[in-house]
Amino acid sequence: MPERPGLDYRATGVDLDAAERTKEGLKALVASTRDANTLSELGAFGGLYAVPGELSRPVLVSSADGVGTKLKVAFMTGRHDTVGQDLVNHCVDDILVQGAVPLFFLDYLATGVMDEQVVNDVVRGVAIACRENGCALLGGETAQMPDFYADDEYDLAGFIVGAVERDAVLDGSRIAEGDVLVGLGSNGLHTNGYTLARRIVFEVMGLGVDDPFPGEGVTAGEALLRIHRSYLPSLRPHLIDPGLKGLAHITGGGIPGNLPRILPEGLGALVRTDSWDVPNLFLQLEEAGGVERGEMLRVFNMGVGMIAVVAPERADALARALNDAGEKAWILGAVERGEGVRFA
Amino acid sequence: MPERPGLDYRATGVDLDAAERTKEGLKALVASTRDANTLSELGAFGGLYAVPGELSRPVLVSSADGVGTKLKVAFMTGRHDTVGQDLVNHCVDDILVQGAVPLFFLDYLATGVMDEQVVNDVVRGVAIACRENGCALLGGETAQMPDFYADDEYDLAGFIVGAVERDAVLDGSRIAEGDVLVGLGSNGLHTNGYTLARRIVFEVMGLGVDDPFPGEGVTAGEALLRIHRSYLPSLRPHLIDPGLKGLAHITGGGIPGNLPRILPEGLGALVRTDSWDVPNLFLQLEEAGGVERGEMLRVFNMGVGMIAVVAPERADALARALNDAGEKAWILGAVERGEGVRFA
Repeated sequence: MPERPGLDYRATGVDLDAAERTKEGLKALVASTRDANTLSELGAFGGLYAVPGELSRPVLVSSADGVGTKLKVAFMTGRHDTVGQDLVNHCVDDILVQGAVPLFFLDYLATGVMDEQVVNDVVRGVAIACRENGCALLGGETAQMPDFYADDEYDLAGFIVGAVERDAVLDGSRIAEGDVLVGLGSNGLHTNGYTLARRIVFEVMGLGVDDPFPGEGVTAGEALLRIHRSYLPSLRPHLIDPGLKGLAHITGGGIPGNLPRILPEGLGALVRTDSWDVPNLFLQLEEAGGVERGEMLRVFNMGVGMIAVVAPERADALARALNDAGEKAWILGAVERGEGVRFA
Repeated sequence: MPERPGLDYRATGVDLDAAERTKEGLKALVASTRDANTLSELGAFGGLYAVPGELSRPVLVSSADGVGTKLKVAFMTGRHDTVGQDLVNHCVDDILVQGAVPLFFLDYLATGVMDEQVVNDVVRGVAIACRENGCALLGGETAQMPDFYADDEYDLAGFIVGAVERDAVLDGSRIAEGDVLVGLGSNGLHTNGYTLARRIVFEVMGLGVDDPFPGEGVTAGEALLRIHRSYLPSLRPHLIDPGLKGLAHITGGGIPGNLPRILPEGLGALVRTDSWDVPNLFLQLEEAGGVERGEMLRVFNMGVGMIAVVAPERADALARALNDAGEKAWILGAVERGEGVRFA
C-alpha cells in the first residue's frame, strides 16, 4: 500500500485521472487563466512566467495566505467553490496595497481523504478568481494527508506574485499629516474573525447554516461565505495617481491593526465612526455576542475592507470616481500627528 | 474571546511578541537571507523583490510544495528544525530542473495550538536552507487553526520563485536518442514515500524513533529525517553547459514517474539497475515490508535524487566534475526510442 503521490496540477492544468465533464471544464477554466507570459506546459516541475517586458525596473511583490477557519463554514454548507475566490482575492488585495498588479498564483490544497468533486470545486474557485483578476494559475500542489486532516476537510493556502514599477511602489512613505483616509466598503467578514463569528452565529445565536440570518435576506451560511472582495478593478486605474499615497488592506484584524502598518513614524490616524454605517452583519454579531464596540473594531473589518490614504486635494475626486465605478467609498478620517488609530 | 490574528512574519523578520534570545537569533537568521534585491521592510503586506537586472529576458520559475507526512516523523522525534530545510531544498530542486536559480521563498505554517519554540524551530530550518541556497525568505504566513490541527501538530507548505534567462530554460526539448543519463545520489527518502516507510519502520519493524536503524548507525528517527538534498550547489556551474539537456527531480514518486516528464514524445529511458548500489535504508524497507522491487522503484527514489540528461560526449566529463565536487554521480543509463522507463 504505497503512498499515492499527491495530485499534481502544476503549470497550466489540473491533471486528474479521468476525463469527466466537470474535469474538462475545470481544465479549460485553468487554461483560461493563461496569458501571453505564461510559458510552462502541463506537467512541468515548476511553472514558467516571463517577466512583463513593459516594466523598466520591475519589482516583484509576493504574499502567502490561507483562508483560515472560514473553511469550516464551507465544510458545514458543503459549498466549496467560494473559498478559492476568497484566497485569491485576499492575496490580490495584499499586493495591490503596494501598488502591484498580479502576475501569477499557486495554491496548496491539503486534504485527508481526497474527494475529487471537492478538489474540483475548490480549484474552480481559485481559477475563477484568477481569471477575474487577470492572474495566471501557474501551478499548485494537492496533498493527500489522511493522518493530518479529517475526512472531508482540507486546508487551503495560496501564494501570489505581482509586479510594480520600482518607482511606483506604494509604501506609505509619502504620507503626511492632513492626508485624507478614503474607506472602501467590504461585503462581509472577508476572511477575518471567523473563529469568533462562528461561535456567535452557531452557538450563541444557535443558527444552522441553512437558517435565515437576521436582516440579511440570506442564510447564515451564505452570509458568512460572502466572497472576500478584490479591490483591484476599482483601484487599478488610480495606482498612477500621485495623490494616492498608501493603501491598507483591512485583514487579519480590524482597522487599528492594519492602517498603522503603512503610516510613517510619528503619524497616526483619526477615524470617524460616524462616517459610515456598520453593516447589519457586524451589528448582529456585536449584539448577540455581547462584544464591545472597541473589540469589534479590533477584530473585524466592520464594513471597511480597504483604506486609501490620499492627498487632501485629491480625496473627494478619488472617492467620487470610486463611487462612480460602483464602489462604496467615503471620507473616513485623516492622518494626524501621533501613533495608532484614534476613533472619534 | 476573539480570534487571535495569525502570527505574521511577512517581509524580512518574524514578528513574535517577546524578545527572547532564540527569537532574536531567528530574526537575525531570517534577516541574513536578505540580499541586494530584497526591498521590503518588516511588516509590509507583501514582500518586495527586484527582478535581477543582469537577466535580459528573465523568466520566473515557481513551485509550491509541502513536506507531506515526513512531518509525522518530526512530531514523533520532537525535532522541528529539519523539515523547513526539506521544504526549501525540495522547492529549490523543483525549479533547478528548469534551469532556474532561486530568488525568494515564502512559507505557510498552519498549527493547532501555537508552540512558539516549535514555530521558531520550523522557521529556523526554513531560514537556514534559504541562506544556504542564496534565497531570500521574503515572507510567510503562520496560521493558528485549533479546529483543524491536533495540538503540537502542524502542516508546512512553501512557495519558491526563481529566475532563468529565457534562452536558458531547461525543458528537455533538446533531448535525443542516445543521450546519457547521469544519476546523482540522494541521501535518504528525501520527502517521498513516508506513508509507506512509516508503516514499515514503526509497525512492521516495530522500531521507535530512538531505536537504532539496522545498518545505518543512527536512530530510525535520524534515518527518516535526513534532509532532502539541494542539488543547486553541485549543478549550478553546469547550467550553462549546452551538453546538459534536461534535469529530472526524483520526487513525489520514483524514477518512472519523474524522468518521463522531461522526455520528448517518442523517447523513453533505459535505466541500468546494476549501475548503482541501492542504499541500505531502501533495502531494509524492501525486505521488512516485503515490497517488490518494481514497487520500490515506483514509490521511492532508491538512492537517485536527481537525473541529468546529457549529450553523450559530455556525460563522462559531467559525472567526473560532479564527483570532484563531492557529489555521488554516475552513468545511470541512456535515452532510447520508446516511452516511459525500462529497467535493465
